[in-house]
Amino acid sequence: MKALVYQGPGQKDWIEKDKPTILKPTDVIVKITKTTICGTDLHILKGDVPAVTPGRTLGHEGVGIVEEVGAAVANFKPGDAVLISCVTSCGKCANCKRGLYSHCDDGGWILGHLIDGTQAEYVRIPHGDNSLYPIPEGADEEALVMLSDIMPTGFEIGVQYGRVKPGDTVAIVGAGPVGMSVLLTAQFYSPARIVMIDMDPARLALARQFGATDTIQVGSEDVVAKVMEMTGGLGVDVAIEAVGVPATFDTCQKIVSAGGSIANVGVHGKPVELHIEELWIKNINISMGLVNTNTTPMLLKTLGTGKVDPSKLVTHRFGLNEMLAAYEVFGNAAREKAMKVILSA
Amino acid sequence: MKALVYQGPGQKDWIEKDKPTILKPTDVIVKITKTTICGTDLHILKGDVPAVTPGRTLGHEGVGIVEEVGAAVANFKPGDAVLISCVTSCGKCANCKRGLYSHCDDGGWILGHLIDGTQAEYVRIPHGDNSLYPIPEGADEEALVMLSDIMPTGFEIGVQYGRVKPGDTVAIVGAGPVGMSVLLTAQFYSPARIVMIDMDPARLALARQFGATDTIQVGSEDVVAKVMEMTGGLGVDVAIEAVGVPATFDTCQKIVSAGGSIANVGVHGKPVELHIEELWIKNINISMGLVNTNTTPMLLKTLGTGKVDPSKLVTHRFGLNEMLAAYEVFGNAAREKAMKVILSA
Repeated sequence: MKALVYQGPGQKDWIEKDKPTILKPTDVIVKITKTTICGTDLHILKGDVPAVTPGRTLGHEGVGIVEEVGAAVANFKPGDAVLISCVTSCGKCANCKRGLYSHCDDGGWILGHLIDGTQAEYVRIPHGDNSLYPIPEGADEEALVMLSDIMPTGFEIGVQYGRVKPGDTVAIVGAGPVGMSVLLTAQFYSPARIVMIDMDPARLALARQFGATDTIQVGSEDVVAKVMEMTGGLGVDVAIEAVGVPATFDTCQKIVSAGGSIANVGVHGKPVELHIEELWIKNINISMGLVNTNTTPMLLKTLGTGKVDPSKLVTHRFGLNEMLAAYEVFGNAAREKAMKVILSA
Repeated sequence: MKALVYQGPGQKDWIEKDKPTILKPTDVIVKITKTTICGTDLHILKGDVPAVTPGRTLGHEGVGIVEEVGAAVANFKPGDAVLISCVTSCGKCANCKRGLYSHCDDGGWILGHLIDGTQAEYVRIPHGDNSLYPIPEGADEEALVMLSDIMPTGFEIGVQYGRVKPGDTVAIVGAGPVGMSVLLTAQFYSPARIVMIDMDPARLALARQFGATDTIQVGSEDVVAKVMEMTGGLGVDVAIEAVGVPATFDTCQKIVSAGGSIANVGVHGKPVELHIEELWIKNINISMGLVNTNTTPMLLKTLGTGKVDPSKLVTHRFGLNEMLAAYEVFGNAAREKAMKVILSA
C-alpha cells in the first residue's frame, strides 16, 4: 500500500509500505476513505516532535471501512463505516474510566506519532472498540473527518474547559482550523459575542461567515485596547488561546475579565510568563490539555441538526495519491487560503 | 477610641482616633470584641501595598456588637452580635449577583485597605446587610474570627477552586494560617491523603495534628522526588500554593498529575514562569483569586458539627490594648510558634 512517511526533519515521501496486520486481538484494520493533514503533522516534519522517528506513517484523522477485526473486537465487523479518533483509548485504565482518554495508559495520541497513522491506504487502530465510532447513516464524510481531532479539540479544550456560557463575550486568539472549531462549537452555548483575533484578514472574513460577531486584526489594530473598548473596560469572560506561542497567551492574560477564564488550546514549545502578580486577585481560571475525544458521541449527535456544520472548514480537496500536493497547499495555508484539506481514496 | 494606625512603611502606632460614624444609610458601626492580625497586614507594613496610605487603621477580620445602624439597614439592630467579613459587598452589582463579591463594584477588600479597618475599638462596615453575618447562638468567638478571612480563603480559593474530591491526594505548599485553613476545610471532601509541605518542622507537626496524613520538610527533603515516590510517579490530584512566591508555585507545577489542579491561594508580587510547554498536554487546571466569602453561611453551619474546629488555629491571646505586643509576636511567627493571634476587648 501507499503511505506518507516521515523520513527525518524536513523530509517526507509518499511511498510503498507493507499493509498493516492485526497485532493484538483488540486491533482493527481500517481501509481509509478520507483523511486530512493537521498542523501537528507540519510540526513533526520540522523535527519539533522527537518521539516521531524516521519511517513513521503520519496522520491521526480520518474515516474508512473496517477491513479486518481482531478476535476480541465486539462493536465492529468488516464492511462497517467508521470514524477514527485521534486519541486511542483502552477504556479500562484509571484515566479512561474518568474520561481522560488523552492519558490512557495504553493509548492517548499515538496515531502518526508512536505508531503508524492514517495518511495511508490502510491503518491499524488499537483498542478498536473504544477508538472507533460507527458512522451515522447519511452523515457527511468530510464533516466526520473534522470530528477525528479538531472539532473535539476546539469543543473540549476551548469551549468546555473555558466554561463558555449564554451571554458571554468570548475572544478566540488564532483563526486556524482549531480556532475555527472553537468558533463553531462555542455557538452551542449561545454566547452574546465572539471576537476572533488573527493577523490574516482572509481568515477573519471567514470567521465572520462562521459566526464571529467581531474581528480584530493583529498588526493593524491594538488588540487589548480594542477588546477593552468593546467590553466597557472589563475584558472578556473567556479568552481562548489557539496558536501556541507566548505572545498569544499573553494577549489572553491581558484581555480576560475578573472572574473569567483563559482556555489554552495551543500546543506550546516554550514557557510563558504568567502575570500572577496581577491575575491572582482577579479570580481567573486557566485550563489546558490534549483532547480526550470523550465528546465525540455528543458531537456526532449534533451533525445534521443544523446547529453546526464542520464541513465548512474544508477548503481544498485531493485524491489520496495527491498527498504531496496536499501537503504543499496545507503547508502554505495563508498563501493558498487553506483551512482544512481532504484527501479521498 | 484606640486604633492600630499605619504611619508609612515600617511604622505603626496604637493611638487615639475619632470613633467612626454612619456616613451612608447602609453603614453599620460595630464595637469590636475580638480581632486578629493577618499576613496581609504585615505586607502593608512593609510598604508592599501602596494603596494603603498613612493614617489608615488596619485589620479586616473580627467579631463585635452592633453599636449603630444606618437608616437603610434591615438585618441588624444595636446589640446584635456579628461576624465581620473581610470582603465588603453591596449585593446588587453584576459581580455580587454572580457571587463574585471580591469584585463588588462598591466593595471587595476595602477594610484596613481603602477604608479604616477592624484593629480598633469601633469600625464602620459599609453595606452592613451584606457584609456582616449574625453570630449563631453559643458559637465560639475565636473560631468565628477565623471565618472573617482565612477559613473562607482556604476553602474557596484552595479547596473549592482546586476541586478536591473524595479519595484525592492533595498537597498543600505552605503551612501558614491559610495553608492550615486549606488543610482543615479540605477534609470536608474526604481526600485520601493530604501532604503538607513547609520548611518549619513545628508547623509540620501541627499540620499532622490537624489532619495531614504526610508531611515533607522543604530544605531537608527533595519535595518533588518525595511526592513522586508517594504517588507512584503520578503526582498529586490537587496542588495548593499557600505562600505566594515563584518557588512554591513552581513546586506545584512539578508535582501535579495529569488531569489535576493547581489552586493558587498565595498573594504574589512577581510573575512566575509557567511551564506550559510541559503542562499543556497534561490537562491541568490552574485557579487563583481573592476570597469571595460567599461560603461564609456554609462555613457558619459547619461550626459545632465536629467536622471542623477553626479555633485550633489560635495560638496566642492578647487584650485589644496589647495590639503592639501582638504584632511583635505575629511578626515573628516562626520564632514564637505563632499561627493566629486573638485580641479581645
